[in-house]
Amino acid sequence: MNVYSRSLSKLIDELSRLPGIGRKTAQRLAFYILDMPLDDVVNLSNAILEAKNNLRYCKKCYNFTDSELCSICSDETRDTHTICVVSDPKDVVAMEKTREYRGLYHVLHGAISPMDGIGPEDIKVKELLERIKDTEINEIILATNPDIEGEATAMYIAKLIKPFGIKVTRIAHGVPVGGDLEYTDSVTLSRALEGRREM
Amino acid sequence: MNVYSRSLSKLIDELSRLPGIGRKTAQRLAFYILDMPLDDVVNLSNAILEAKNNLRYCKKCYNFTDSELCSICSDETRDTHTICVVSDPKDVVAMEKTREYRGLYHVLHGAISPMDGIGPEDIKVKELLERIKDTEINEIILATNPDIEGEATAMYIAKLIKPFGIKVTRIAHGVPVGGDLEYTDSVTLSRALEGRREM
Ligand SMILES: [Zn+2]
Ligand SMILES: [Zn+2]
Repeated sequence: MNVYSRSLSKLIDELSRLPGIGRKTAQRLAFYILDMPLDDVVNLSNAILEAKNNLRYCKKCYNFTDSELCSICSDETRDTHTICVVSDPKDVVAMEKTREYRGLYHVLHGAISPMDGIGPEDIKVKELLERIKDTEINEIILATNPDIEGEATAMYIAKLIKPFGIKVTRIAHGVPVGGDLEYTDSVTLSRALEGRREM
Repeated sequence: MNVYSRSLSKLIDELSRLPGIGRKTAQRLAFYILDMPLDDVVNLSNAILEAKNNLRYCKKCYNFTDSELCSICSDETRDTHTICVVSDPKDVVAMEKTREYRGLYHVLHGAISPMDGIGPEDIKVKELLERIKDTEINEIILATNPDIEGEATAMYIAKLIKPFGIKVTRIAHGVPVGGDLEYTDSVTLSRALEGRREM
């Protein structure tokens, strides 16, 4: 028999569908939510629904936004002649955290993966090309993931853009800062060696 | 500057207020929620609000319930002459998991703690006494936490109930001293139940 009330049971079920939230954590969160002031519970519930309902893609870069243009595309201090191409909105967050990049982004929302039946037409490649035609771009930085799909996507886009005479670069592969050479896989290590620079 | 859209930022804020959910986990969950089908997001959002809105205390034992009586109190196969007194609805869940206890519960919703200004009148002690007066009880098992507050609460209740001539027992210290009933594994908890002694 179920020791939880019907609606508590439902809440635990829903919470445990989230990634990394097991039954125990879901139970702990559910009881915590029941103890929260009603206003806070309403805020949480609304925040979930509103984030999903307000979710739009930026008209220009396809990053998540609430308005027509994302905060980066509408920031006039950014360098509009450089585009960093990433697979996922989360990668924009990661890049922004470096505080080193001042250009714009283009979010592909995926990577080419013939194994999973994902072709160039399934991600925002066409949109990138249109963007390049419309504006003066000095450099396209391909920052797709350093895995098979990310590499294939970078190769594909590089080939497409070359005819435009725009500089296309790929983020460097190498040993992660603070990482241990001993535990670095050999593919990464050979890439790190390839990409060595004079000091 | 904020790299998230306003509503995404709000969602991350709300999620990171939950216990054990740091900014990183909140970000991961928020992006996951944005990727979920709208129906699932609506279900999650509603489950949170409904659990809180439907939340009631069982008229008899003060466990969480959606209806007048909780599923345990309305289960006719349970032994209605034994009451296990716990501090928290979570402890009911922990006790039920042992599958050894077939009596009813009484949820105090707290423990006596003079340091925190919590006296007997702040928890459901009066309600327990009224329940005892109304029904024939053979045994009261005091299963408050094995910490200072839980012990004080057990002592206080034992003293109050003694005059009624009802057998009062305390779960054994199979539960680690200073531990929390909620996080005690069911084996330890069943041992503690077995080893209960009259107070
Ligand atoms: Zn944008
Ligand atoms: Zn009940």
